[in-house]
This record gives sequence, structure tokens and C-alpha cells, in this order.
Amino acid sequence: MKQIKIKPIGIIHSPYKDVKDVPIQGTFRKDVKGRIKLFRKYRAGLKDIEGFSHLILIYYFHRAREEKLIAKPYLDDETHGIFAIRSPMRPNHIGISIVKLEKVEKNIVVFSEVDVIDKTPLLDIKPYVSYYDTRKNVKNGWIDKHFAGGRMPERLKQLVKPKRRKNEGK
Amino acid sequence: MKQIKIKPIGIIHSPYKDVKDVPIQGTFRKDVKGRIKLFRKYRAGLKDIEGFSHLILIYYFHRAREEKLIAKPYLDDETHGIFAIRSPMRPNHIGISIVKLEKVEKNIVVFSEVDVIDKTPLLDIKPYVSYYDTRKNVKNGWIDKHFAGGRMPERLKQLVKPKRRKNEGK
Repeated sequence: MKQIKIKPIGIIHSPYKDVKDVPIQGTFRKDVKGRIKLFRKYRAGLKDIEGFSHLILIYYFHRAREEKLIAKPYLDDETHGIFAIRSPMRPNHIGISIVKLEKVEKNIVVFSEVDVIDKTPLLDIKPYVSYYDTRKNVKNGWIDKHFAGGRMPERLKQLVKPKRRKNEGK
Repeated sequence: MKQIKIKPIGIIHSPYKDVKDVPIQGTFRKDVKGRIKLFRKYRAGLKDIEGFSHLILIYYFHRAREEKLIAKPYLDDETHGIFAIRSPMRPNHIGISIVKLEKVEKNIVVFSEVDVIDKTPLLDIKPYVSYYDTRKNVKNGWIDKHFAGGRMPERLKQLVKPKRRKNEGK
């Protein structure tokens, strides 16, 4: 198996029009809402999804052009292996985010805690299941030092400060 | 964007040779070990991964032939939308698992808490980050009733009972 063909199942819409606006993790911007426009043919697959408070979105980093094995993440001044960071410049350019489900209307899924750029192609939606997806006693490698003492990293704080947007409402 | 081409970055090896042997979630089989054989060209991407206790594996359900929008999960007697369950028969046949990192040796990553079938094509490895990936106050839809009172579902118990394997050591 040398190559695998996959296809978007919908498009994720978010207020972030540019890569530099996207927060590192959506959970630090609880107020921002996104919208999945699932292609109509997949609509039946949403049955019973409203019982879940959180979803795992799997998507394609469509703006990523480069593939790197070593890179410097936004949070840190050191380089790390691509499999030790969440950078889009990874092989296959696949991203995942956990978001909070707000509501489902026909083929539209509204969610909060967004960290993806507008018009991102969606590959899959899975229910977030606390019994399967939560781990205790986690060691977070190079990331732990940035969250030491339970505080939010300075670099994240700058990112999560809500910006006044021009032309809001347009 | 109608079609996206991706490629395996390695192969996941596990003791589960057949679909019916695989537990629903690896976290309920803490003793079982798997092994990622990352293709050598990606080896540099593993730098610093050993600082993380858990990894998110993204892989291709290579045995899945069908695509269904409504299906009955192993745990339940009712059908649900494919995006409300974790079945391989989903569009794009992409799977994710959280596993516990045991050790890294060159291009080999040994892990426990396995729930994938042997020879599964690996698409990505991401660090599991508790600050990003853990959620509190989670509602687990149709799954909650099966874990009510903190007990493990009967159907999971049957699956997690270690089997004596014939030809062990072969």
C-alpha cells in the first residue's frame, strides 16, 4: 500500500481567515464558534451525535505546503521532531482537534473551542469518549515546562486575547 | 479539493491478527504491547518523543471494505450514525488510538494499550498533550449508560479476558 486516497466529507468554517490568527488550541478560546458544513450525502451519519458534548475532528491542513521532520513549535524556542509537536508541516498534513458540540441542524454542526482555519477540508468526525480518550498521569515532554504551576504560557496568552475585528458583521 | 493523497509513514504491528481479536479500546488491555515500524526516512521526526507518556496514533483501517452511514457498534444493540460511533466502516476509514509509549529504539516505537490489528498502515503520530486533549464534564451520548456506576460493560469484559493463544512463541 503505497498511496491512500481519501476525500473531504465537508468543510469547516471558522472566524480565522489567516494562519496567524489561529490559536494553538481552541480550548483556550472558548467563546469562538465554528461550523461544519457536512456534505449532504453524509448527513445520515450525524444520527445521535447530539448526545455527545465533545467531538474529535480530523481534517486536512490544506494550507501546509512543506513537509519537515524537525521544526520549532510556536510555544518553544527549541526544535523538536515533527511527531513530538502538532505542526501542520508533518507528513500527510493531517490535523485533529477536540471541539465542543453546540448544536446540529440538518447537515450543519455548530461547535466552539475552534482552532482551525476557515475552509479547512474535514476528513472525519468521531465522538470524544471520556472512557477512551482521557488519560491520567500524563507526561507532556517539552510542553510541561510551559504550563508549570498550572499557569497558561505567556505566548498562549498573547494569542488568546480577543482581537477587535474590522468589518465585523460583514 | 475532490481527492487527497496520503501515504503510510510506517506499519503498526500488534498481537491481534484478526479483526475479532481486537479490543474496543486498548486502554482496557494494558498488558498488550504493539510496535510501530516507522519507515526509516521519517526517523528524525521521533526526536524528543520519549518525553511524552502517551501518543495519538492516526492510521488507516486497511481491512475495512464497506462505507456505512448508520451502523450498530459492538457495545450496543441500537444503530447510530457513523459519526457517533468509532466503527472502521466510516468514510475515509481513518482510525485514531491513544497508546502508552514504552520505548523508542531507532525507527521502532514500542507501546502498550493496543487496539489495532496487525500490519495497520500508520498515517501520523502526535504527542498526547493533557492540556489540549483532556476534557472535563464530558457527555458520552449512547455510551454513558454502558459505563454507568463506574463499572466496565459486560461486553467489554468478555473482550478483555486474555486468551490463551495457540502456537505462542512461534
